[in-house]
Amino acid sequence: MNTWTREACERLDEQDPLRDFRGEFALPEGVIYLDGNSLGARPKAALERAERVVADEWGLGLIRSWNSAGWFDLPGRLGDQLSTLLGGGDGTTVVTDTTSVNLFKALSAAARIQAKDTPGRRVIVSERDNFPTDLYIIEGVIGTLGGDYELRLIDAGRPLDEALDESVAIVTLSHVNYRTGRLWDLASVTAQVQDTGALMVWDLSHSAGAVPIALEASGADMAVGCTYKYLNGGPGSPAFIWVAKRHQERFSQPLSGWWGHARPFAMETAYEPSAGIERFLCGTQPITSMSMVETGLDAHLRVDQTLLRDKSLALTDLFIELVAQRCGDHPLTLITPRDHGERGSHVSFRHPEGYAVMQALIARGVIGDYREPEVLRFGVTPLYLGFSDIWNAVEALRDILDTRAWDTEDFHRREAVT
Amino acid sequence: MNTWTREACERLDEQDPLRDFRGEFALPEGVIYLDGNSLGARPKAALERAERVVADEWGLGLIRSWNSAGWFDLPGRLGDQLSTLLGGGDGTTVVTDTTSVNLFKALSAAARIQAKDTPGRRVIVSERDNFPTDLYIIEGVIGTLGGDYELRLIDAGRPLDEALDESVAIVTLSHVNYRTGRLWDLASVTAQVQDTGALMVWDLSHSAGAVPIALEASGADMAVGCTYKYLNGGPGSPAFIWVAKRHQERFSQPLSGWWGHARPFAMETAYEPSAGIERFLCGTQPITSMSMVETGLDAHLRVDQTLLRDKSLALTDLFIELVAQRCGDHPLTLITPRDHGERGSHVSFRHPEGYAVMQALIARGVIGDYREPEVLRFGVTPLYLGFSDIWNAVEALRDILDTRAWDTEDFHRREAVT
Repeated sequence: MNTWTREACERLDEQDPLRDFRGEFALPEGVIYLDGNSLGARPKAALERAERVVADEWGLGLIRSWNSAGWFDLPGRLGDQLSTLLGGGDGTTVVTDTTSVNLFKALSAAARIQAKDTPGRRVIVSERDNFPTDLYIIEGVIGTLGGDYELRLIDAGRPLDEALDESVAIVTLSHVNYRTGRLWDLASVTAQVQDTGALMVWDLSHSAGAVPIALEASGADMAVGCTYKYLNGGPGSPAFIWVAKRHQERFSQPLSGWWGHARPFAMETAYEPSAGIERFLCGTQPITSMSMVETGLDAHLRVDQTLLRDKSLALTDLFIELVAQRCGDHPLTLITPRDHGERGSHVSFRHPEGYAVMQALIARGVIGDYREPEVLRFGVTPLYLGFSDIWNAVEALRDILDTRAWDTEDFHRREAVT
Repeated sequence: MNTWTREACERLDEQDPLRDFRGEFALPEGVIYLDGNSLGARPKAALERAERVVADEWGLGLIRSWNSAGWFDLPGRLGDQLSTLLGGGDGTTVVTDTTSVNLFKALSAAARIQAKDTPGRRVIVSERDNFPTDLYIIEGVIGTLGGDYELRLIDAGRPLDEALDESVAIVTLSHVNYRTGRLWDLASVTAQVQDTGALMVWDLSHSAGAVPIALEASGADMAVGCTYKYLNGGPGSPAFIWVAKRHQERFSQPLSGWWGHARPFAMETAYEPSAGIERFLCGTQPITSMSMVETGLDAHLRVDQTLLRDKSLALTDLFIELVAQRCGDHPLTLITPRDHGERGSHVSFRHPEGYAVMQALIARGVIGDYREPEVLRFGVTPLYLGFSDIWNAVEALRDILDTRAWDTEDFHRREAVT
């Protein structure tokens, strides 16, 4: 392990092949933004896009813009762009609704197929440490299935095969854990699950745009994820759902709204799902929020994914090493895997006063976030963070810990959003 | 019936107590916009609001805006504002997701309660002429219920009681029919349905913001609707769901995402629904699109609803009378009820060449829309339309019919969105 210096970090920034991307994002003065894994920074182009949608497409085009501005095609157009990034194949992805709603669709579709093909399988497997909405949605889906379905949770660190047997219908995991940053191997886990006869549904919320993904090659059955974290789509921008081409004609989902109909404007009385991925659409989408997703994707589609991953790992390595070197006297416990093959693009530490420490950091403009219990979480976004940012962030952390600056009543509890 | 003149229409505009509202909306030059029942015109304030959300709240506030800009409270805050307009009572409404998704939640919740309270009831009643997505969603919900549930459709013009018996669990109707503009009486239909032991779920998409509504006083059980039509929320702006206070603690719905949890940030493994209307939330909402809903609601909350309704009826009366007087030689058939008590805020006519006639109108800047089969639909929005607009629109229609200007290949088929 090197002994790091500020100058060494500055030299890495000068040599960084991705350094020019930072200029494409609007970031406030005096802020080191380490929460792009929760809400990605704004592409400068997003403001002009929003103005165009609101002033011109809505204000002047009015109802005509559903056709003339391509609004109705947005879920599929953005889906195809995103699929290029995720290696998903053509016609496999739509941008629509929320991650929770899309997971409901995916799990419902998977459960229906399994109930038909192998009705004895009544278990859905996930992780106890999964992002809670994934677990809540599994509960919701199970409530619609009738019969004795069961949610089986594996504990962090336990091998997945302990949960796999002939009773499992579906396994659903987050590719990168929202708290620890732990990364599953997409292809090998998918193969392991499918070998037991279960279907594999991934949540890519904390990996899409942060980690190279080859969805089609992984053999996965379905995936969902969000666009407002590493993909920079804007606050609450619509999520996505991907369905393997081989399944599309067979899978159906219960949120059978008119956007998923084979002929949405024929105004027929009976539902007939669209032949393709569009059957996973439901209702009319929030066009202004959705349109800005394109400006986020645009930057990602111009980045070499290998360079992105290399920089991500270099930045998270640096963070981990600096904390060890500069904050070694303080009770910080790394909970993110050190192994590159098991790490996403954020790093997390436990600290007994994690909540107050994070508030003190935020007050100094170093914006990470806090997650129960005791977790300081730092998102690393290679498109708009450099090595000096990491140095400065850890120096702020060191100073706060050395001076106990976190230990004031100002840094009381509040709520936050992932 | 008066014989109308252009001058008489101009005099009515001069006397119109709502005439100043027009200045609050951005409308293009040379357009008479008769499709505000499909996509409402843009409040001028919406552009500044979008810019503030994108440039300041997202760009500068970043993740902090979930708290500091009140993003997380938006569904409830907008819901309370909307509930004031709809007479829904406090804490009964959230703005969230799409109408289709919200109808899925409402029908699922209603069906669960009925399955528990009166399990023999296995029929959901609606109208054959309902907006198709409502029927498709009923199909989707039935698919999740197990057992022998049935959709029973009444034909247009038939009395509702023909469909009501002790097997009916839920009745769901559109308050105003999307095609004909036919208006149901909210309170008396609700009472009629509930007298038979069924629950009443309304779709207010084509009436919210167009017709005075007293939801709580009507005794209805649940309602959903959209904000992008008469409420001017912007393209695809999030929809709403209202649940009668008396039901909130008992009703639950399967889209059990983290925004509906009693403690969304405690990151608990098991789902526990929020005590109030928030249990009908699911996932993270599209903040930019949602924020603009407030600028639409702002205008509506300053309008006297009686004046709005009076003007709406005067404008639709005028449209009907002018078509009779000025286009009487042409095969136009009014399909909107003449009785004020049965009319929403749009008027529709059948014409054998309806599609081409509407394209010819749009080409002249008179923007209504076409609905299968053969229906010319004209939305009347009293906040930004005047009596002279109706005169000019009918004159354009008359000229197109008199000169057969619709009869060219330019006006071939395309698709449109309601």
